[in-house]
Amino acid sequence: MKVSEVNVLEAQTRHVRDAIPLFDAMQLTVVGLAPGTAAVQAPQEPNRNHAGMMYAGSLFSLAEVLGGLLPPATWDITGYVPIVADVRIRFRAPAMGTIRATAELPADEIARVGQELAAGAAKVWFTLEAVLTDSAGVTVASTEGKYVLMQMTVPGSANG
Amino acid sequence: MKVSEVNVLEAQTRHVRDAIPLFDAMQLTVVGLAPGTAAVQAPQEPNRNHAGMMYAGSLFSLAEVLGGLLPPATWDITGYVPIVADVRIRFRAPAMGTIRATAELPADEIARVGQELAAGAAKVWFTLEAVLTDSAGVTVASTEGKYVLMQMTVPGSANG
Repeated sequence: MKVSEVNVLEAQTRHVRDAIPLFDAMQLTVVGLAPGTAAVQAPQEPNRNHAGMMYAGSLFSLAEVLGGLLPPATWDITGYVPIVADVRIRFRAPAMGTIRATAELPADEIARVGQELAAGAAKVWFTLEAVLTDSAGVTVASTEGKYVLMQMTVPGSANG
Repeated sequence: MKVSEVNVLEAQTRHVRDAIPLFDAMQLTVVGLAPGTAAVQAPQEPNRNHAGMMYAGSLFSLAEVLGGLLPPATWDITGYVPIVADVRIRFRAPAMGTIRATAELPADEIARVGQELAAGAAKVWFTLEAVLTDSAGVTVASTEGKYVLMQMTVPGSANG
């Protein structure tokens, strides 16, 4: 990884932690970001539950934030804000240690969304599937999130 | 509310915050707990997002934790641990201010789960629907969570 890429990831990490203080408590770090793909991770300790695993809510947030990180790295979303509408998370295995969430959009989806944005659509929907893995690569959870890129009329209408 | 009820809720708040440190960062408080029903809430500030609303991940956690709080208040779950398997959350309106999550199980579900536990089933499934409301009573999000009460063989097998 180039120095410039490391700097971008560090800046993105600062950015999301400033935007959402809970990510600071989670010690969330942006570890990958490029057109059509994003990845974040967090360590066990601040996210542990009573059973010594990563808490379900921390796993959810690791996956959910990808829907906010990916769009500005993928399209020109000037005038739009990403809003999360609906997320389903399936817990598949005990989540031990540092957990990474990764999402990647298919090329045809990247193209479709880009075309709708270029056409000035008021709302552009996309679905993001994220996979959460432990340091051995075992999938501990997976999500399917529905997001909308909404043209801003009134500032500040996002939970995401 | 009786003094004894207040003491129970304060003890439960301490209990969940000790078990899951993220709830301390969220300033999550248990505000209702009785057989078949549970409620928690959290203030805006530690859970805010960039748009000045409650972050989606905090909303998720408020709803999710009810699946851990409700069972020991509802059934004798000695020898069982509640594990979250699958949660779907729908975001319905901007979440401003203090947000409360409430879940209530129908009487026939309470009875069915109680019977399966009494019969010593290895796994007892239940579905918990939670509603998240702002201080005006407006629904800002809702969840449907699938949980399993699992008979403990190896200690510590829960993400929930």
